[in-house]
This record gives sequence, C-alpha cells and structure tokens, in this order.
Amino acid sequence: MQQSLDLLLKEIKPLDQEAIAAAGRHLDQLTKPPGSLGKLEDTARQLAGITGETIAEFGKKAVIVMAGDHGVCEEGISAFPAEVTPQMVLNFLSGGAAVNVLARQAGADVVCVDIGVNADLEHPQLYSRKVRKGTRNMMRGPAMTEQEALEAIHIGIDLVKDLVADGYTMFATGEMGIGNTTASSALLAVLTGTDVAGAVGRGTGIDNEMLRHKQEVIERAIEVNKPDASNPFDVLAKLGGLEIAGLTGVILGAALYRKPVVIDGFISSAAALVASRIAPQSASYIIASHLSHEQGHARLLEAIGLSPMLRMDMRLGEGTGAVLAFSLIEASIRIMKEMATFTSAGVSQAPSE
Amino acid sequence: MQQSLDLLLKEIKPLDQEAIAAAGRHLDQLTKPPGSLGKLEDTARQLAGITGETIAEFGKKAVIVMAGDHGVCEEGISAFPAEVTPQMVLNFLSGGAAVNVLARQAGADVVCVDIGVNADLEHPQLYSRKVRKGTRNMMRGPAMTEQEALEAIHIGIDLVKDLVADGYTMFATGEMGIGNTTASSALLAVLTGTDVAGAVGRGTGIDNEMLRHKQEVIERAIEVNKPDASNPFDVLAKLGGLEIAGLTGVILGAALYRKPVVIDGFISSAAALVASRIAPQSASYIIASHLSHEQGHARLLEAIGLSPMLRMDMRLGEGTGAVLAFSLIEASIRIMKEMATFTSAGVSQAPSE
Repeated sequence: MQQSLDLLLKEIKPLDQEAIAAAGRHLDQLTKPPGSLGKLEDTARQLAGITGETIAEFGKKAVIVMAGDHGVCEEGISAFPAEVTPQMVLNFLSGGAAVNVLARQAGADVVCVDIGVNADLEHPQLYSRKVRKGTRNMMRGPAMTEQEALEAIHIGIDLVKDLVADGYTMFATGEMGIGNTTASSALLAVLTGTDVAGAVGRGTGIDNEMLRHKQEVIERAIEVNKPDASNPFDVLAKLGGLEIAGLTGVILGAALYRKPVVIDGFISSAAALVASRIAPQSASYIIASHLSHEQGHARLLEAIGLSPMLRMDMRLGEGTGAVLAFSLIEASIRIMKEMATFTSAGVSQAPSE
Repeated sequence: MQQSLDLLLKEIKPLDQEAIAAAGRHLDQLTKPPGSLGKLEDTARQLAGITGETIAEFGKKAVIVMAGDHGVCEEGISAFPAEVTPQMVLNFLSGGAAVNVLARQAGADVVCVDIGVNADLEHPQLYSRKVRKGTRNMMRGPAMTEQEALEAIHIGIDLVKDLVADGYTMFATGEMGIGNTTASSALLAVLTGTDVAGAVGRGTGIDNEMLRHKQEVIERAIEVNKPDASNPFDVLAKLGGLEIAGLTGVILGAALYRKPVVIDGFISSAAALVASRIAPQSASYIIASHLSHEQGHARLLEAIGLSPMLRMDMRLGEGTGAVLAFSLIEASIRIMKEMATFTSAGVSQAPSE
C-alpha cells in the first residue's frame, strides 16, 4: 500500500508557472495599483497555476467532513463526551450543523464521511468508509497501525478522485472527532519540534487543570510511542487520527487531480502538515482559510508556509472556516473576470519606476 | 450648523442590551461549543443590539463611495496623478472598478458620491453633492473651513437618511481621493498622538524617498495648522478631506438611524475615528472589515476599539474590503436562523462548569 501511494504521489505536478505569469500580467492591467488587492491577487495567481488557465473556472464545490473517534478520550482530555462524534455526524446529515449552514450560503455540498466513528452509523447520504471504530489510546501505544493510516490516506485520495469524476472542482476540508485537537497537537509537536506546552490549546473549551492534563497525556504518548519525526507516516499512525489521515489523503488527492483545496483550522492544518511532509509539492494546492483561536494553529500554518485570510477567532472545526473562505476565492475569480483595465476605463496609470 | 448637528447626535441611542442578551442565549443553544464561532457570534449579538431584534433581518445593502480631491497633492505625495480621482469616479459609475465587482457578488449597490472632486462631473447615477472642488493644500493652511467640514458631515448623514427611506438596511463605506492616505495619516497622528513616522504608509505605492517627503509634508501641515487634538471638528477641517468628512457623516447617520455600517480600510477608519470622537456611541454601530496593508491601520482600529475579520493584505480602498465582509455578516445571520439546537438535534452538551 505504501508502494502504490509512492507511485501515485510521483504524479503530483508543480503549479503551471506560465499560467501564473499570465494571470499576473492580467492583474496588472486592471484599474488598481499593482498588488493592491493582496491575497485576492495571490489566490487568482495560485488558481491559475493549479488549473493551467489564466482565468480559472470552477463548477461544483464540496466540503469533505471526515469523522473519527479517538481512543485517547478515555484519558478525559475533552470538554465533550465521545458520544458527541456520532451525534454530530447525524447533525451534519440532517443539515443542522454550522458547516451545513455556511456551506448552503457558499453553494457547496457537504460530503460527510465516517472513516472511524466508534458507533454503527447508517444514512443514505453518509459515505461509509470506516477503517475501524476509533483509534487506540495513544497514551498506551500507537493510535493506528501504519497500514490503517495508509488505508485512511487512500480513502481520502479515492474520494477526491470520485468527486472529481462527479464534477467537483474545488474542495474544503472539515472534520469531527472528539479528542482530535489532542492528536493534532501531538502531530504539531513532533513534526515541527514545538514543545508540547506551545502546541496544546483549549480545544472546544477546557479549563486550566484539564489543559495541564491534556499536555501530560501528549507528553506521555510521545514517550511511549517514540515516533520518528523524519517519517510522517510513522508520526501520523502513532499519534494521529483516522479523520486526520483521511484529510491528509484529501489534500494529496486534490494535488494529484489539480484542484484547489481550502483547509480549515487546527486539525485540518495538522493533516495538511502531514501531507506537505509526505509530498512537499502538495502544499502549493492548499489555500489557508482562517487563523483559528486554537493555540498552535499559527505555528502549523507557518510550518506549511501558508498565510490565512480570515481572523474570526473561530475554534469549531467541521470545515466552517474553510467554507467561509469560498466567497473570498469567488471574489478573486470575479476580479479577474469583471474588472475594467486602465485602457478600457481611460484611467491613468502610475508612472513606471 | 454645529448646533443642529449637536441636536441630531443627541438622538444616537446605545445598543439594545436586552436584544444582545437574547441573541447570546440563542447562540448558546446551538450545536457548537459556546463562543466557538468567534466573530460570527460577536456580529450576531451586535446586529441584535443595533436592530433590537434577536435575529436581525436585513434588506438592501449599499456601499457609499465618497470621492474628493486633496489640495496637498500639489506637494507630490502620491504615486498617482490627481486626475485619477475623476477618472475612477467614472469607472465606478460604469461598473468596472474592484468595488463594483465585489459589490455585485455581495448583492450590494454602489452609491457613488461627488463630494469634492476637482472636476465637473455629470452622470445620471452620480450623487452630486460637491462642497467644493477639492480641499486646500493643508501644508499652507486649513484644508477646509469648519463650515465646509460640517457641510460634508451633514451630506453624509442626509444621504443615509435618504437611503434608509429608500429601503437600505446595511451600509459599507468606501472612498476615492488621490492624496487621501496623507490626510488620514495626519488625522491619525493628531487624534491618537501617534508620531507621524508611525502614522504614514505607502498609500497606493510610493518609494522610500516619497515616503520621507510625505512624512515631512504632514509634519509641516500639523505645524502650520496647530490643530486642537481635543476638538475633532477642528482636526478634521484642518487636516482631513471632504470624502473623509462625508464618511464621518455616513457613520454618524448609520448610528442615528440604527443601521450597521461596515468600514473599509485606512481612510474609512480615519473617518470612523473622527465619528467616534464626535459621538462615542456611534462606534458600537461599526463593524470592522479588514486590516489593510497600510501602516497605521491597526493603530486606527485599536483607537476605535475594533477588531477586523479579514487579513487580505489589501490596500485599495474604494470600500473593497468592507464589501468583502458582507458575506461574513450574512453568515452570522444565517447561523442564527438555520443552525440546529442541542435539543432539536439530540446532541449532548458539555457539562456546565
């Protein structure tokens, strides 16, 4: 499975530099000081590089919400009980969660995937791709076998392949999994060498005492598992989660099929960091949406080389921040399509330097 | 005119605390950890306080783009020639500027106002409200008389009144005026006691030498005019601009007629700072959209007590950042309207502390 993945990942191409340059030339003809639309211009160039078209066109959009449970929850590291994971999956499927509301506004579909929920779930709209019923408790040993982590990555890649065949052209990542900020903090700590105290935050809202406990649990999990920081598969398997591995696959899949993928907050960014360590080229297909309120998120984005567009102090996950950013991406495409040029509008340019 | 303004401004009411509390109670019933939607929740509460409704409803939206010229341009402080102001006004009217593109996406109308352009402009869609053809050169004396500044403020207030009568329920501020970052930097420096070097930025894109010159021009203008920092009318008249005074009026008008007003970047925020000094209550009707790339903008927002939602590295003005934020505001309203509650979705809450 590792070999078939390696072969696949060799197919990830760098961005189309010619299209990026053509997009840049177009932007500089528009009635505005060069560069003055900031990240709207950066995004327009990136979309050109991803699609190979000066002015990219997009069709259907999907936010892929991967759900999985975490064995480490038995250590009492979350403000919410583990039963909330399957409850929230049903909420996604009935359209009542925050990500559903924001996806409707953005005209995006919510693709809800059970990749590792610790409950028997059935629903006509659910993508049932369960690898196992939750990870093992990482404080006592590896959360997953490397084989399980690889299977989850392949599920993410295959899902993107299927959705692309179905006409989807842009993706966002989202997740649900009580305990998954603990797993993500552990990944951040090991993969970037950040000390655990700096990598751990309050998740859905724990107090100081639980925060210290969460930190100790992560320190112990690292001690017990001795992950090899230079091997992202090893780190992901030992300390990650099934939904995190699945999203790693979604990001690798987006790069493979040349589609932009908008990442959400802390957990999605942990998956993106793993993806960028597995295949560095994949990072250029990622658009960062928001800076989460979760401590450590800035460090994660920095490690991937991304700068977020939104500062909403959000810390919900589900893909909510990523879906909010769809309208900013649409704005960058509209700017390319609809703005007047200096010549067409009869506006004087600044004298060239 | 000062007296009639004082009487008007006494009518500005504080936000409805009962509606804010009701909105907060509603938010805490929704299937998410309390507060986890950050500024979407803050905005929902603020909109409740402004409208007096737990779940605010809005109709038509307008971005009011005020255009004016600056006498100080004869000192050579901008990368663009002053003729660009009227050229861009025509671009707004024909729908080709960035703000037009982004307003179309947001479903907002562009209301373009000539409040002080140094050219004869006529167009069926133009709001002609010219106080005079540009300000005087503030390096040689006051940019405006206090009477002219007051007239511009009243124009802004009256415009909001008319638009409200016409069914508009939410406003954004925008501007066009070659030279207006110079005026705004001067306002920032005097009203907040920031040193001029920290208040001046590159505007539409000047080099280091011009930046030093711009700084000297502002220092000289402050020296010549001796503005009274405790009197916002005096500071605005001596160092401001007609479009800035007009936007001050728009913000005061929004507060008076209890409508939210989304401010754009550096120049809009200078107008907002003046408004908040004239009538402190008005600040609670303002929503900050983005942090501009212009140095000094963070300081301006901090002085008003606002925290922006977007970090797009934009520095165009026109209202582009404000209009981008309309979709975030719509998101906060949709969250209030459409999300499931813990009870309706059968999701477990975190145990109360």
